Amino acid sequence: MSGARLSDGAAGGRMIEDVAPLETAGPADVTFLDNRKYTEAFTKSRAGAAFVIAALADKAPPGMVLLVTEEPYKAFARTVQSFYPQEEVTPFRAASAVIDGTAKVPADCAIGENVVIGAGTLLGARCAIGANTVIGAGVEIGDDCRIAANVTLSHCLIGSRVVVHPGARIGQPGFGFAPDAAGHVKVPQIGRVILADDVDIGANTTIDRGSGPDTVIGQGTMIDNLVQIGHNVVLGRGCILTGQVGISGSTHLGDFVMAGGQVGFTGHLRVGSGARIAAKAAVFRDVEPGATVGGIPAIPFTTWMREIAILQRLARKKDGR
Amino acid sequence: MSGARLSDGAAGGRMIEDVAPLETAGPADVTFLDNRKYTEAFTKSRAGAAFVIAALADKAPPGMVLLVTEEPYKAFARTVQSFYPQEEVTPFRAASAVIDGTAKVPADCAIGENVVIGAGTLLGARCAIGANTVIGAGVEIGDDCRIAANVTLSHCLIGSRVVVHPGARIGQPGFGFAPDAAGHVKVPQIGRVILADDVDIGANTTIDRGSGPDTVIGQGTMIDNLVQIGHNVVLGRGCILTGQVGISGSTHLGDFVMAGGQVGFTGHLRVGSGARIAAKAAVFRDVEPGATVGGIPAIPFTTWMREIAILQRLARKKDGR
Amino acid sequence: MSGARLSDGAAGGRMIEDVAPLETAGPADVTFLDNRKYTEAFTKSRAGAAFVIAALADKAPPGMVLLVTEEPYKAFARTVQSFYPQEEVTPFRAASAVIDGTAKVPADCAIGENVVIGAGTLLGARCAIGANTVIGAGVEIGDDCRIAANVTLSHCLIGSRVVVHPGARIGQPGFGFAPDAAGHVKVPQIGRVILADDVDIGANTTIDRGSGPDTVIGQGTMIDNLVQIGHNVVLGRGCILTGQVGISGSTHLGDFVMAGGQVGFTGHLRVGSGARIAAKAAVFRDVEPGATVGGIPAIPFTTWMREIAILQRLARKKDGR
Repeated sequence: MSGARLSDGAAGGRMIEDVAPLETAGPADVTFLDNRKYTEAFTKSRAGAAFVIAALADKAPPGMVLLVTEEPYKAFARTVQSFYPQEEVTPFRAASAVIDGTAKVPADCAIGENVVIGAGTLLGARCAIGANTVIGAGVEIGDDCRIAANVTLSHCLIGSRVVVHPGARIGQPGFGFAPDAAGHVKVPQIGRVILADDVDIGANTTIDRGSGPDTVIGQGTMIDNLVQIGHNVVLGRGCILTGQVGISGSTHLGDFVMAGGQVGFTGHLRVGSGARIAAKAAVFRDVEPGATVGGIPAIPFTTWMREIAILQRLARKKDGR
Repeated sequence: MSGARLSDGAAGGRMIEDVAPLETAGPADVTFLDNRKYTEAFTKSRAGAAFVIAALADKAPPGMVLLVTEEPYKAFARTVQSFYPQEEVTPFRAASAVIDGTAKVPADCAIGENVVIGAGTLLGARCAIGANTVIGAGVEIGDDCRIAANVTLSHCLIGSRVVVHPGARIGQPGFGFAPDAAGHVKVPQIGRVILADDVDIGANTTIDRGSGPDTVIGQGTMIDNLVQIGHNVVLGRGCILTGQVGISGSTHLGDFVMAGGQVGFTGHLRVGSGARIAAKAAVFRDVEPGATVGGIPAIPFTTWMREIAILQRLARKKDGR
Repeated sequence: MSGARLSDGAAGGRMIEDVAPLETAGPADVTFLDNRKYTEAFTKSRAGAAFVIAALADKAPPGMVLLVTEEPYKAFARTVQSFYPQEEVTPFRAASAVIDGTAKVPADCAIGENVVIGAGTLLGARCAIGANTVIGAGVEIGDDCRIAANVTLSHCLIGSRVVVHPGARIGQPGFGFAPDAAGHVKVPQIGRVILADDVDIGANTTIDRGSGPDTVIGQGTMIDNLVQIGHNVVLGRGCILTGQVGISGSTHLGDFVMAGGQVGFTGHLRVGSGARIAAKAAVFRDVEPGATVGGIPAIPFTTWMREIAILQRLARKKDGR
């Protein structure tokens, strides 16, 4: 299931009981080596077994069972999943929950204390809603969703197997107004947020409803904590947005776009599928599919690296070194 | 009311029933063109009518009714407001709300489920307080305010027509202490937050109470999501702070200052009225009224652009191009 | 107690009744001068007394009692503490709180409205838990902690005298998965968050539980609002993280590290004790103990300043100045 190949057939009989990181793993634990930075810790590890790429297998301490794979972290992930399967939802309905009479909440859902669910809202099967979460009127949620505590949802349509971490705000009006010295003129926001299946939304992340069109998060996209998604943003499938990323209104990302921490995108951009944006970059222009960019403003990654080196050299010269 | 001029008198009889963006608008919808980027979408639009500036009117498809105005977005905003007027507050008091006996809550307010209102707090007329919001003791709120769900308010004085989006935190103690290796010495924070009339606070935004003086947000200022406002910050009227802006303690902004996404201001600065700060900039020094700045550290915008061009040229040279 | 020396013995009899900032202080107030920027305000101040360093004492207005100290802000902090002592916790248990029968909550705690406390959770003496806060199963909290309203805690072990401001999220699963085009493979997160004694966590800050190891925040560390702390991060004692800082997974900071606003750290770094990171910096590499760095990517502070000056000169040249 983890897709790894045992490098030592004889050791197949060893008993592995848990997963653990390199430093703390013992003889009954399986671990992994993914980052060359940790090669020394690998060599010193007491782990009974480890997922590792072939090229680093010779750094293993004697006696360690090696599970050689091209993707040690993925193999480890699957192993952790099997050791720590997600708990099933135990049907529950807190007496303190306030559920509108017109909402539909299947009996196999777990509805936490003080949850508030508005008129006409529909939940799928086996959803868990954390304590003190507020779900507005007319929200639709698919099957097997996990909505954590203290979340606010409104004006949104949510697929199946979606995970929303605590404190996320999804569906509030976006930042829409026409600036005017006599008083900015607000534009009523009338679109929705659509979260496709398998989306994961981080803690205290905010996703505004569309202004007229919808804000859309594509299937399997992973969004970390404290991320800001403006109105009408469209994300494709499998995107990865790390903590504190911000995306301004009406910017569209293709599929499998990866953005490092604190990246910002201005509005109305088109970022092609497979683009990778280095942490802290400011994307002010469209990005080609598959491009890797970094810097402020973001430029091709290798050009950015060259600019950094040039500046460094100039600074050294001035220093007489 | 929208201030536009019909470019084709004969078409005045056409029936417009809704508003919509360029791409999805049909013959019964009014739309707008504001950004030249969307000229092609304008030409292809099936909208029955559009607000547009005179210079782009000739890009319209045949048959579209043109509402020519110098400010198409503002005219559109007003039109959306008339199609989608803000819902009036329906008086309501949730049985689950816990309102201190000394608080004053007019009967025409809507108090959501599990709302908690502390001692001596005063609400104005027609306020709506979202579910699971906590309002501490001694808070004063004006008329016609909309406080969303899961908000926390304390130590604050709020004007009329103020909007607070879900998860905002207003009035908690600021980050005040004297660093000390033997244990940082905290400074009790004893000021308030004052939000003037017509202020709009984004989702999960945080505004700390003053340390002794107050933290003040001026009339009509719009603050987006996940913005951090430190203690003693003073913002003038009509400022616009985009998502994830951060302002350190005791910095003052004048009126109508605009800051793009992820801009940071260090503490104790003075930023003049009408200043504009490009997205992602780091403002480490005072900014003159009316100045436009960008970069890290922020410098005059045109100088920043020149620096970017110079670096680019140097990088190209090294590349032998 | 404030450690200052009275510069004018005769004036020791003056009655000081309150603390106040330079601008608003009157004859019965004590104030302080810490930042040379405010020397003019100091000279104009009507304060009855002021903490000040010796070098600036001659800028005082006539008649002001001077409390000369090398650390005016710290002395002022202690004075404010004595004028405004922290309120003691008044034992209280809201009828609306839902406390699992297996949780232990001492009678001297204050448990706010709608608080939810899970199975097996243990609170120390004299803790205050704000309204609508949710504490998951198995959490342990020491004595004299102040957890504000609308907070979410899970999978964490918290020391004594810890302060958590409103909306903080502590202990949710981190951003752990192996990227895969066929669907990112999530890694179950099984570690905890450990907050040592005297830690202070800002409003809407997020701290993820460890993936297997724990996420650890050292004794006396101060964390401002909207900060993101990834899984397995380890912070030493007395660190200061200003607003909107982000730390990616598995990065370790030593003791007394200071990071300005909006600083970002990528993952798996080692930052030495006493390092200082200028606001907005992006730390992509390990930082030596005691180093001061700034810029994107972060480099030694003086080199960064030199690079900024060089670019500025080049831009001026091109301009013909």
